Amino acid sequence: MIPTCYCWTSLETLATEVFKHAGVSAAKAKIVAESLVHADLRGIESHGLSRMPIYVKRIEAGLIERVVEPQLVMQEGAAALIDGKNQLGAVVGLMALEQALKLARQTGIGFVGVRHSNHFGTCSYYAERAISQGLILLVLTNAPEAMAPSGGIRPFLGTNPIAVGIPAGQEPAFLLDMATSVTARGKIVMAAKKGEAIPADWAIDQNGIPTTKPEQALLGSLLPIGGAKGYGLAMFIDLLCGLLTGAAFGPGVKSLYDNWEHPQNIGHIFLAIDIQKFLPLPLFQQNMDEYIRQVKNGPKKEGTSEILIPGEIESRKRRERLQKGIPFSLNVEDELSQLCAAYGLDLKAARIAP
Amino acid sequence: MIPTCYCWTSLETLATEVFKHAGVSAAKAKIVAESLVHADLRGIESHGLSRMPIYVKRIEAGLIERVVEPQLVMQEGAAALIDGKNQLGAVVGLMALEQALKLARQTGIGFVGVRHSNHFGTCSYYAERAISQGLILLVLTNAPEAMAPSGGIRPFLGTNPIAVGIPAGQEPAFLLDMATSVTARGKIVMAAKKGEAIPADWAIDQNGIPTTKPEQALLGSLLPIGGAKGYGLAMFIDLLCGLLTGAAFGPGVKSLYDNWEHPQNIGHIFLAIDIQKFLPLPLFQQNMDEYIRQVKNGPKKEGTSEILIPGEIESRKRRERLQKGIPFSLNVEDELSQLCAAYGLDLKAARIAP
Repeated sequence: MIPTCYCWTSLETLATEVFKHAGVSAAKAKIVAESLVHADLRGIESHGLSRMPIYVKRIEAGLIERVVEPQLVMQEGAAALIDGKNQLGAVVGLMALEQALKLARQTGIGFVGVRHSNHFGTCSYYAERAISQGLILLVLTNAPEAMAPSGGIRPFLGTNPIAVGIPAGQEPAFLLDMATSVTARGKIVMAAKKGEAIPADWAIDQNGIPTTKPEQALLGSLLPIGGAKGYGLAMFIDLLCGLLTGAAFGPGVKSLYDNWEHPQNIGHIFLAIDIQKFLPLPLFQQNMDEYIRQVKNGPKKEGTSEILIPGEIESRKRRERLQKGIPFSLNVEDELSQLCAAYGLDLKAARIAP
Repeated sequence: MIPTCYCWTSLETLATEVFKHAGVSAAKAKIVAESLVHADLRGIESHGLSRMPIYVKRIEAGLIERVVEPQLVMQEGAAALIDGKNQLGAVVGLMALEQALKLARQTGIGFVGVRHSNHFGTCSYYAERAISQGLILLVLTNAPEAMAPSGGIRPFLGTNPIAVGIPAGQEPAFLLDMATSVTARGKIVMAAKKGEAIPADWAIDQNGIPTTKPEQALLGSLLPIGGAKGYGLAMFIDLLCGLLTGAAFGPGVKSLYDNWEHPQNIGHIFLAIDIQKFLPLPLFQQNMDEYIRQVKNGPKKEGTSEILIPGEIESRKRRERLQKGIPFSLNVEDELSQLCAAYGLDLKAARIAP
């Protein structure tokens, strides 16, 4: 069966309407819609419009702010701190990104900490924007508890991702966007639904024993990449995003799905670098192209058809989906359809005729 | 057999003398000696005085500069670029660190790129100094080819480490210092020196087959942590340290051990953050202490006596070795002894009476 595909611009318009119906201003609704469709275009369904229903539920529950604006609470030299005032994560994130890019153009570097934010979509949304303006961006965010410390058995750290965007010239940009866990919790949920075993290096059970049973894994903890190294990376990200900014940290970061009493109070870090302070941008881009070609032209392992650059798969997926449309899994399609209907909107209107 | 232990101050004095005999100025010799003994104190023998013989060999071969000073070639706002002029890595690194700390105090953030440098010891040497001054430091460096890209079979990327130092109050500071490979190349060099086998998941041989033989691993490729994630991290570090600064990158970074025609041309990045721009340092330190205690007091896996913070093992080792002295493996002891003797110096003079 060929899945139904949806037009990305129609989806953006529709999602904007949904958020507006939920009481979000048109400008803010458009930003959040754009950030979610960005993820779907890149094939990251877990961070795409599949998150719209939970965002709306939290807005309606009064756990995400509709009106009060995020505030720049400190700006000195190349550093700034933004209080997200519990606004939608993408709205806060975009403000922080713009501040970081502005500072970078002024002082070479822009370092912006953010507190009192919410789930802000994929980090790549921000990295892609920086890339399109010819700047390098490093984005960090903390997240609700999911990983135990090395030697521990209870979740303490989030899957705290790190993303880096670096512009190239003719070649696709370098865009790394990775969780510090071996896998996403969503993949274990999927395995549980399908009744499939999971690899032994994904998670531990409640006693700290590696498990191939998804149900046990969901009661336990995700494992970080590289053992103690990934544990250290996730903690460094939590310390900068949480402790330095004044956001929540460790188990203090509230779950998007399971906590209905408190805002998430997520913290982010945006670090922008103005390449032109170091060398002319066209020269840097040319060097990037040469670097990428050198990597891709290297000898390959038997059975490997191509060496890929971080972000290359997603950038191809995006090109394909801009043209052919975005498919959803059936669950997500149903949920989105119901959400639209509740506001008198029709998901079908965004379909591409087959 | 109880190994002979050496007094760290005597070792620093002795190593300083060795470098002076090799034609390095007293001030520079002292820095390099200090950076190497720093690693030995923390139990990182692979990056300690075991590197002194190869440093000296490269100095004597004219592949490391003795006289010309590193130069600040750009400083604008919060960003700076240093040309190491092929000086000893620790000399260049320390200058870059000081520039980053100075800029951070002025503008909140200091971002310093470095080109034309050499192996600069452990990243933790710089992170420890930043911590002692109450600043956060992120250090990146590229390194000679050691890891194949995901899907490739020939080394392209170095084991490109990332280090982060974050000061605490009463508790030991957070000090993460990790290669992006499963293990550091230096550990395989040590295993080769000691004639020991290595775990099968550390590396592949020239044909892409996992190997337990360090000699085969050194001819093949190390494996990154977390598969494609570690590959992405190592590449981001290479792009910043190499492409952005104008240093060598990828296989263009020359080997410390195997290349006798060219300087290494290593690149580094130092990012310093002044905590006090965000919140008062004592409050941050107090929060760090609480965070660390919360992690350490969490429930533990059966058989785990203690949950550790990144850098905690090394900080304990340091306290122990400051008092009881530093032991060396026999190979390293022999090599150091010979090197000292060649300059009319006696390693035995640094021994602690048993």
